[in-house]
This record gives sequence, C-alpha cells and structure tokens, in this order.
Amino acid sequence: MQLLFLGTGAGMPSKQRNTSALILKLLEERGTVWLFDCGEATQHQILHTTIKPRKIEKIFITHMHGDHIFGLPGLLGSRSFQGGDEPLEIYGPVGIKDYVTMTLKISRTHLTYPIVFHELVEGKVFEDRLMTVETRLLDHVIPSYGFRISQHPLPPKLQINKALLLGVPKGPLLAALKNGQDVELSDGTWVRSSDVTDAEERGFIVTILGDSRFCQAAIELAYDADVLVHEATFDGSAIKMAGEYGHSTVFEAAETARRANAHTLIMNHISARFLPEDEKLLLKQMREIHTCGFIARDFMEFEWIQHEKKIRKKQGSHL
Amino acid sequence: MQLLFLGTGAGMPSKQRNTSALILKLLEERGTVWLFDCGEATQHQILHTTIKPRKIEKIFITHMHGDHIFGLPGLLGSRSFQGGDEPLEIYGPVGIKDYVTMTLKISRTHLTYPIVFHELVEGKVFEDRLMTVETRLLDHVIPSYGFRISQHPLPPKLQINKALLLGVPKGPLLAALKNGQDVELSDGTWVRSSDVTDAEERGFIVTILGDSRFCQAAIELAYDADVLVHEATFDGSAIKMAGEYGHSTVFEAAETARRANAHTLIMNHISARFLPEDEKLLLKQMREIHTCGFIARDFMEFEWIQHEKKIRKKQGSHL
Ligand SMILES: [Zn+2]
Ligand SMILES: [Zn+2]
Repeated sequence: MQLLFLGTGAGMPSKQRNTSALILKLLEERGTVWLFDCGEATQHQILHTTIKPRKIEKIFITHMHGDHIFGLPGLLGSRSFQGGDEPLEIYGPVGIKDYVTMTLKISRTHLTYPIVFHELVEGKVFEDRLMTVETRLLDHVIPSYGFRISQHPLPPKLQINKALLLGVPKGPLLAALKNGQDVELSDGTWVRSSDVTDAEERGFIVTILGDSRFCQAAIELAYDADVLVHEATFDGSAIKMAGEYGHSTVFEAAETARRANAHTLIMNHISARFLPEDEKLLLKQMREIHTCGFIARDFMEFEWIQHEKKIRKKQGSHL
Repeated sequence: MQLLFLGTGAGMPSKQRNTSALILKLLEERGTVWLFDCGEATQHQILHTTIKPRKIEKIFITHMHGDHIFGLPGLLGSRSFQGGDEPLEIYGPVGIKDYVTMTLKISRTHLTYPIVFHELVEGKVFEDRLMTVETRLLDHVIPSYGFRISQHPLPPKLQINKALLLGVPKGPLLAALKNGQDVELSDGTWVRSSDVTDAEERGFIVTILGDSRFCQAAIELAYDADVLVHEATFDGSAIKMAGEYGHSTVFEAAETARRANAHTLIMNHISARFLPEDEKLLLKQMREIHTCGFIARDFMEFEWIQHEKKIRKKQGSHL
C-alpha cells in the first residue's frame, strides 16, 4: 500500500499545489488503486505518475465543493478512452450521482464501463475479504465525510519446513493446515495448525478525512490509525477563522491525531498563502502536540512497511 | 490584439498539449480578454501566463464536448475568488446555461459577479462600437459553432499640424474635424474633414472554428480573414476517418483557408498521436495547398501588427 498525493492545495489550484486528490495504491493487495477526491486536473497530475486510469477501482468523494469534484467528468472520460472496461464504484455525498450523470450527458461522454454509485450514509460502506471502509460525517459548511480504510488481518503464513519435518506430505493437508485446520496423518498422529503457522498479522488502518472543523467524528475515525490524512487549511494562530470557514488549523489536526492515538499525521489542503518556507513553522506547531507528521506536497508518496507496521515517506517522491 | 493558445490538443490532455482553450487578448482595444473554449485545467494554464481571470469579459464555447467545457466551472469560481466583479458573458450552444448553472449549484460555488448567457443561433451574436462577432453552425457530430470576430475600421486619425496650419483653433472644431464634420472658421473659410484626416484603416478579422468536418460554413466564416484558427485532428491521409469522427485533416484545414482567401492559418486540436517531430510533415501537407500557416502549441502566441495588417508569431512564446 502506498499513498500518493496528487493535489494538496485548498480551494484553488496554484503553481505549487493542485486541488484535492489522493491515490491509495493497493496494487500488491488487490491489483487496483483507489482515488480520494478529484479536483480539476487530477487526470493531468496522473499523467506525471505511473498510475493507469483503468486501474482505478473506486473513487471516494468527501464532499461536493468544486476543488474536490471538478476533475471527475474528465477523468471518467479518459478512463474510458484509454480502454477501461472494469466497472467503477463511486462513493460520495448525495448529489454525486446527479453531478456525474449530468456532466457526462451534457458533454455526450459515452463510457465503455458501468459506474455503480453509492451515496453515503454513515457506517460501513464497503467490505470484502481484504478490507473494510467506514465513513463518518465530519463538521464542514456542507456535508463532508471521512473514511477509515482497514485492511483485514493477513492470513497466517504456513511454516512449510516445520510441517514437512513433522511428516505432513505435500498436497491438500498443507493447505488445510494453512487454513487453520488440524489434520490427521496416515500414521494416526495429529498435527495442529497453530504449531506450523505464524500468528496472523494485523493489516493497516488508513484514515482520510474531508474538509472539517475539529470534531469528535474525526477522532473516532482515526482511532489507532497508522496514518491519518487531515486537512490543515490554517496555521495554529487562526483558530477563529478556521472555525468560521469550516476548516481546521495545524493545532487541531495534531490534536485529532493525538487524541485518536494515530501514528503518522499527514496534513493536506494547504492554503496557497503558505510558501514552502512556512512549512517549518507549521511542522513546529504540529510537534507541540503530536510528534510524527508531514505537510503533504503534490506527488509526495508514502509507503506502508508491513514488517515494521509503519508508514514511511518515499525519498525524492515529490516536487 | 494577440492570440494566445492555452490548449491545442484533441480529446484528452497529454503532457504536450492541454484540451482546447484560446485567449483573444484585446487589452489595447478594450482592456479585456476573450476566451474561446475552456477545456479542463484552462485555469491551470492561465497560472503560467500574465492573464488575470477577472479580465475575462466574454467566453465563447464552440460545442459541448468535454474537452471544450470541463474547465469552465473551476475557472468561473476562481475568477470570483480573485475578486472579479464585472459581469461575464458566456456564448455557447443550447445547454451551456444548464451546464454552468448546475455545476455551480451542486458545488455550492457562489459567484461575486453576474453571468449573462447567450445560447447561440447563427448570425450576429455581438456588436458594439469596436467589434462584431458572427457565428455559423459547422459540421461536427454535435452542434459546433465557429466565430468570426471583426474589428471595426479604426477611427480616422486627425493630422493636427495640417489643421492648425489651415487656421483651425485648438478646441471643439478640431474634434469635429476628427469626427468627419467639415467646419467653418471665424473668417468664413471652410475646412474639410477629409483634407485634415487620414483615411480610416481597416481592423482585423479573426475566425475561430470549433471541431468540424470540411464545410461551406467554415469557408464563409473565414472569408478574407487575417487569421483562421482551424482544427486539424488528422493528417492529410486520414480523410475518411476524419469524416467519420466529424473532424478535419490538415489538407481540409488548408483547403478551407485557400478557398476563403484567409491569410494566416493556425491549426489546433492536434491529436496526441502526433509527436513534435511530426509537425514538419503536417506543415508540408498544408503548404501543398496554402502557404502561410502554423501548428499551434500550448502557450504559442501570435500578435496583430496593425501597420502591416498581418499576424506574426511571437518569438519564444511557447514551450
Ligand atoms: Zn476544499
Ligand atoms: Zn474536441
């Protein structure tokens, strides 16, 4: 799993930061990628990466502000043009279906694949063998959602050599042991699954929030997360203004991470007011409250290291 | 007057060419700029120019395909955010008003300025003291319009020294002469306006077409134009395919310029199939039919030289 930030700005594009979009790469886990928000020119940002639009399996939209959705019609059209034929699932607030349907219709964009729409209500919005996605309503000026993506525990690994030493023959008995069943050998001895398998390993928890004021729902969504992606539209001093505009300060992002016991905080939705040299100040403010964190930049990438159970920034990944 | 190409590609953005957008700068003439088509990320392209979104007075949309309109909602929002309060006029096919109104509404984009919509029918769509814009329906797979922008003749210039020599006193009589009136001096002699003014000079004619097959309406719109902006989605050999997809070849663009007696042909809407090294071939094909022309690239700029009555490419203006 990797997190690739495509747009880390707030409100409008600037030369430094595009409007919101974030790729959750799940290529090793499920051969696909998921996209969170799709500001204008997200498909242009993708042109500068190795991402193939047809690999996008799901798109999650946090809220219906333009800086989070105006890239959607173009990306959907290009996914089609580039030979995408797998169904696409779009999760977003009420209105997302009308928006997509109408913009495609009026522009006569005919897709080669079906879209399945899921208009969000709080709770579990997706679950399969590998992962679960839950959503909660945050506190913005319009309905804005956050997502908690939990990878299920990894299947226990079979210690093959140990099983063979105990006399288990190659074949179906090994598979049964791997799947947690104890098995009887032809000489009548029993081999216990737990004796020849490693304990199952926990997977990752990633929390990705839409624009929001500081709120309890954010803390709950981020509980024990390995990584929390949280907006930080304002620096620590602007708490009143942040509240008025429905946004958060760096302090509030850090406080959410602290209260949630989240490990790594990545702050995005950074106002164009802040220049690259201001990032030091923002990070200093963050560290007063929460130690481990980053200010996201466009094309910055983070990867999950399974055996360390930690997210790590990829070197040289950003502009 | 200058023509600044912001997006010269066809269908989808590529690293070389963005989707359609073209700025007609009228800063000397009327202190504003006009925009023709607004593909996704047009506002991003504008960030790399000196154009101010609030200076955009009119937007003309040739047709409703996504590569010509998906940048509109974002640009309108940013024009507002950056303090635009002058009314904006949008000219486009039926549906343009619904598209803009709905995308702004669903994204809760509140503009600080009013928009006046003009849904197109063939004929004169705008005229004031300085210029006229006429439109014709071209031949594409959906309704697609072309525009002929004619600058009115420049007001005759008064030869002040000559008038003073003839005894005209400074003041209102000079203004009358400039405006074409003959005047009587206090000694009873008459001075004729035509004796103390240069002849009026013609202005420019710019024709900008939407996607189209070769058609008579294009030729008529381009009649005697100083510059014709014409799509060239296909090279000369692909005439059948061009027709099927509702587009033109380089040969057809050149033939339109030739039949219309247009001076400079600028071809845009260039497919991503063509690499920069293919431009030579395309220009060679063009020259078999029409001598003066260019393949537009993003950020290429052309300027009207009034005393030469010619358009000229600005050096070093493109990528
Ligand atoms: Zn936002
Ligand atoms: Zn087009």
